[in-house]
Amino acid sequence: MPKKGETPQGDTLMGKGRAQERRNMLHGGDIYSVFEKDPEAEKKLVDFSANISPLGMPEAVRQAVTAGLDRAVHYPDPKCRTLKDSICRFYMEKRGIFLSRDMIMCGNGAADVIYRFVLAMNPKKALLLAPTFAEYEEALKLTKTSLEFYFCPKDTLAVQEDILEKIHKGLDVMFLCNPNNPTGLLTDPGLLKKIIEKTGRNGVFLVVDECFLDFSLEEDRYSVISDLSQNKHILVLKSFTKMYGMAGIRLGYGVCRDRDLVEKMEHQGQTWPVSTLASEAGTAALLDINYPEKVRQYVLREREYLFHALSRLGIRFWHSHANYILFQLPDPADFYDRMLKKGFLIRRCANYWGLDETFYRMAVNKHEDNMGFINALEDIIREVSV
Amino acid sequence: MPKKGETPQGDTLMGKGRAQERRNMLHGGDIYSVFEKDPEAEKKLVDFSANISPLGMPEAVRQAVTAGLDRAVHYPDPKCRTLKDSICRFYMEKRGIFLSRDMIMCGNGAADVIYRFVLAMNPKKALLLAPTFAEYEEALKLTKTSLEFYFCPKDTLAVQEDILEKIHKGLDVMFLCNPNNPTGLLTDPGLLKKIIEKTGRNGVFLVVDECFLDFSLEEDRYSVISDLSQNKHILVLKSFTKMYGMAGIRLGYGVCRDRDLVEKMEHQGQTWPVSTLASEAGTAALLDINYPEKVRQYVLREREYLFHALSRLGIRFWHSHANYILFQLPDPADFYDRMLKKGFLIRRCANYWGLDETFYRMAVNKHEDNMGFINALEDIIREVSV
Repeated sequence: MPKKGETPQGDTLMGKGRAQERRNMLHGGDIYSVFEKDPEAEKKLVDFSANISPLGMPEAVRQAVTAGLDRAVHYPDPKCRTLKDSICRFYMEKRGIFLSRDMIMCGNGAADVIYRFVLAMNPKKALLLAPTFAEYEEALKLTKTSLEFYFCPKDTLAVQEDILEKIHKGLDVMFLCNPNNPTGLLTDPGLLKKIIEKTGRNGVFLVVDECFLDFSLEEDRYSVISDLSQNKHILVLKSFTKMYGMAGIRLGYGVCRDRDLVEKMEHQGQTWPVSTLASEAGTAALLDINYPEKVRQYVLREREYLFHALSRLGIRFWHSHANYILFQLPDPADFYDRMLKKGFLIRRCANYWGLDETFYRMAVNKHEDNMGFINALEDIIREVSV
Repeated sequence: MPKKGETPQGDTLMGKGRAQERRNMLHGGDIYSVFEKDPEAEKKLVDFSANISPLGMPEAVRQAVTAGLDRAVHYPDPKCRTLKDSICRFYMEKRGIFLSRDMIMCGNGAADVIYRFVLAMNPKKALLLAPTFAEYEEALKLTKTSLEFYFCPKDTLAVQEDILEKIHKGLDVMFLCNPNNPTGLLTDPGLLKKIIEKTGRNGVFLVVDECFLDFSLEEDRYSVISDLSQNKHILVLKSFTKMYGMAGIRLGYGVCRDRDLVEKMEHQGQTWPVSTLASEAGTAALLDINYPEKVRQYVLREREYLFHALSRLGIRFWHSHANYILFQLPDPADFYDRMLKKGFLIRRCANYWGLDETFYRMAVNKHEDNMGFINALEDIIREVSV
């Protein structure tokens, strides 16, 4: 693993096989590789490796997709007008924030927005958290952007004030994931203000990924969407994937007051990124105004249950504000395989900068599955200590 | 309009407003702009501007999407294994052609594959037909590729032997749309062989866009997919959009024997380009093995009907092998608006290189709509000549 301040090496130095292997394990949710090796697994496997709402897809979304099939004969609206209007209405009604269509770029998942942003910006130098979501770095490979890292302190893994020292005029862009992935930790609102101020002053564009902020109980306090009106240098990323259990439909968006940048992003890929089905699903999801609170409360309860269980087992974990929990388990080395054998797919975190093979991430799932997970964990600990 | 051999100018010289306007009219199917100006239009407008199968979406595809909703909670398979297997099986059973998974890149529409190819290849110089599908040029803007054009002869608008003279060592890539859009004309198989041979010999990568070849009665004779096994420098583009009436679901793919290139293309954008719904739709479509022939026969019959009607009205048109027809109408200048008022949206072709504002493209639609279209056309000719 790279040490603090060290720049990780790209594909060239790692060699192709290694790079490919790393790419394959960049994300959770790769149930398909498991099913391919063991077709029987499909019946019994519970996926704790991807972070999807435990309540799945709301009925309104299902219905909207089925109803949308009639329109799906036609090309989608390349400008996503109806969906953008739904997003604007949602923010106005829910949070009293004014957005306009031309501040929004909708994409085939938030990941699509990340790539289009990177291609539009073509940054020379970027600042990333370590650890953080892998897709920023993957996108920045396309533009051969050189990377600087803020390594979160090894114990807390939280973003601290000293991140401000890493912001300088030589950077073009900084990515801040809030809550961060895989820790689920939030960056303090006071520090956020300072980051916004310092990036602005130094001409550094700031991407704040709020894809998991829906799961926090204090979204309004932590979200910088309300700062957009005063700051042209911020792009906020949002996703429908997690909260509305529609990862397989693909829908995300970015919001930014720099309208020229938004327009440029729309041109960094094909003309129709958002399918008609995704667009209809998104509009239906936003209209289901009480749904997120229901999910939040469920996740909160289950997160607490898991925190208690992990504490009881003496397992080190981080107090996530999202629907996933990072934990550390020095032994046994084959923990991932043992969990898989018991029917639970988890996320190994060794490929995150700043973490190693003792780190794992689990999703907050349905109660019965969470209980099953904890039981399996307990069994393994018992097996090993015998 | 640019003259033969002249290089068209990009955004810079056209100015932003002009470029945006051009971008807005790059494609057919923009029913949403019409509906935005006139919400009443949605009830009565028939879209002749996009080229979708007149039989719409097969029932098997609708059912697959609805059934796929259960799986759409999860992330899609980034490697599209099931879909790629379906594609391989289809070619083996239907045409006796062996493909393997690693020769296929699936995308969020064929347009997504075009962009990923261009980003992966990063070509310095490209050869395009004029006129042809606009998305190649749009994608090549990202890589600032300089363009050379083969202007199809003004009368026939068909690709002729002299295109071989345009292929030289200085090129990195050549795009050949077959049948071409918007003419619907096929490039002769003998000439295709020569193009393959000369591009190969000169180190020029060849992209053959066969997205509309499904509608030809002689797909096997014209398709170069069977040439892939002997030629590593060809990428064939295919789409589900047109034949299976699923433009709003977004699904296309590229096939190429250069496995390193295919892998590189998969990395030129986000990790999950194909939604679970699109993947399930695609597999269902390919299993509906007799469906394409049904569509082909219907399109053939209607195309013939339209050819006769246009001949009868003395309108110049081109003998398309696809599900659209290019025609020319020097008067009246407001033909597009007149047709729109009568409830028919057509594709103006002034923004194609080599064509001007007297050119229009119409889709081959359902019989009753085609009759309505011809009646409206006849009315306008009568109104003008009175």
